[in-house]
Amino acid sequence: MHPQPWYALLSKEREVVLEPEGPEDPTIDYAVVWKQPRGLLKRLPNLKVIFSIGAGVDHILADPTLPDVPIVRVVADNLTQHMVEYVCWRVLDHHRQGRLYRAQQQRRLWHEPAQPPAEAVSVGIMGFGALGRAAARALRGLGFSVNGWSRRPHPMEGVRSFAGQEALTPFLNATDILVVLLPLTAATQGIIDYSLLGRLRRDGPLGGPCLINAGRGRLQREADILRALEEGILKEASLDVFEQEPLARTSPLWEHPRVFITPHAAATSDPVHLVPPMLAQMAAFERGEKLENLVDRAAGY
Amino acid sequence: MHPQPWYALLSKEREVVLEPEGPEDPTIDYAVVWKQPRGLLKRLPNLKVIFSIGAGVDHILADPTLPDVPIVRVVADNLTQHMVEYVCWRVLDHHRQGRLYRAQQQRRLWHEPAQPPAEAVSVGIMGFGALGRAAARALRGLGFSVNGWSRRPHPMEGVRSFAGQEALTPFLNATDILVVLLPLTAATQGIIDYSLLGRLRRDGPLGGPCLINAGRGRLQREADILRALEEGILKEASLDVFEQEPLARTSPLWEHPRVFITPHAAATSDPVHLVPPMLAQMAAFERGEKLENLVDRAAGY
Repeated sequence: MHPQPWYALLSKEREVVLEPEGPEDPTIDYAVVWKQPRGLLKRLPNLKVIFSIGAGVDHILADPTLPDVPIVRVVADNLTQHMVEYVCWRVLDHHRQGRLYRAQQQRRLWHEPAQPPAEAVSVGIMGFGALGRAAARALRGLGFSVNGWSRRPHPMEGVRSFAGQEALTPFLNATDILVVLLPLTAATQGIIDYSLLGRLRRDGPLGGPCLINAGRGRLQREADILRALEEGILKEASLDVFEQEPLARTSPLWEHPRVFITPHAAATSDPVHLVPPMLAQMAAFERGEKLENLVDRAAGY
Repeated sequence: MHPQPWYALLSKEREVVLEPEGPEDPTIDYAVVWKQPRGLLKRLPNLKVIFSIGAGVDHILADPTLPDVPIVRVVADNLTQHMVEYVCWRVLDHHRQGRLYRAQQQRRLWHEPAQPPAEAVSVGIMGFGALGRAAARALRGLGFSVNGWSRRPHPMEGVRSFAGQEALTPFLNATDILVVLLPLTAATQGIIDYSLLGRLRRDGPLGGPCLINAGRGRLQREADILRALEEGILKEASLDVFEQEPLARTSPLWEHPRVFITPHAAATSDPVHLVPPMLAQMAAFERGEKLENLVDRAAGY
């Protein structure tokens, strides 16, 4: 993430310091951050609000010296829009058998496999916040059956909702394509493991379950994903995020024929769309209004 | 298309003759056809209605001895649903740069290209009947800008409508991804040619225009598509239909790196969904009610 475009847009209304130096900077009211150096924010004694420029805030909360001020998460139409596009693209490519057709084309093979309609395919979304709900709406519009799982109940019309740990297995058992949009917290780290993948529906209309992770890489155990693919527990995977990024050139994921890789590109934070609502929140805060989209530190997202 | 499942479902309510033999068969009231042998239908002196089991009826009208009875086109939720899935899948794959990411993955390359949002990309749909309109609704739902072109005006909210021959060039000039869902008629045969492709928007956000043909193969001139790809006039193509089907093993389309091929599989006629409305129409016709979804023979669709 290059700071320059953010600097340019924020500077139109505010005085901006790119990265405060020295032991203390009392002139800073607001911090706009992405993977900030640990200890940096505690050097700002008059800090009032932290703005995250990514949808996830695990990178902010990872700092043990984080000052106790409100954290505002970015919720921008643009970011949501990009994520919905990515999710629908990958769901449709698994559903419509893109990998099979590309392989057939290489062999000049004219063959039409059986194709279930979207309504026969159940897409399960883990993480049912702003992004998960927007993805659910779009997938419903394309005709898919949609299940949602989240820690706390988030009912939504037309979606079968599952909440809490005890509902996880029934949710997975009813899922053909798993879309992961969870925040990274102590409770979710490594959740996409061999045991979880083994509970996805194996006798569904696609001939095996598919995984799409567009949340955080550390939600998944890549060795477990590879094992599940090898053992036929998992049919295909689309991964946008990885335990370590960039993904190491030596990772066997790169050349796995049933894995599709994008470089953490599902939804990029675009300053043109994100800075105006941030500036508006600063002005509202100074008028004494309530901040929106606040992070719940105890929950970790 | 195997006749057996159609036979089995139609037989539940009607007496069915699989392919009438002999010089004349006066026992037949209704014909349910797909690419019928020429001259077959004129041997049915008491034929009252022809039912097409495909969305297009060019294969029926191609018979010069076709009796002058009403032709009912199939309009089934299931067929429309499959076509909408196919169109959204291919549009998203061109828009989200699937080909580039697959090539990068082969080279183990971690690189994020610029990605415009869907609203910056203009999808132009040629043919704005039931399928085109359903595709337009779904693409609008995904955030794309949508243009529609048809012979006669078909206004639709949120869609920029173009109608008639004189509007074709402005429509093409405003289109980044062209989706062809036209019927095959004397007026549309070979319409996707070098001249048409050359009028698509070349300076759009995707770095060049893309073609998706899910209509009929004889709408396109494949030599012109290859030439446009070679000359950089066309960036990529997704073709589900071909001038001759199955596509010849010797066709250079198979191995063109910027062409994605499916074997006329975008939307398959499924007897389970299509036979019940056909039987319902026969019963309604016998009660003296009007037939729905009639083909306009003069227009050819």
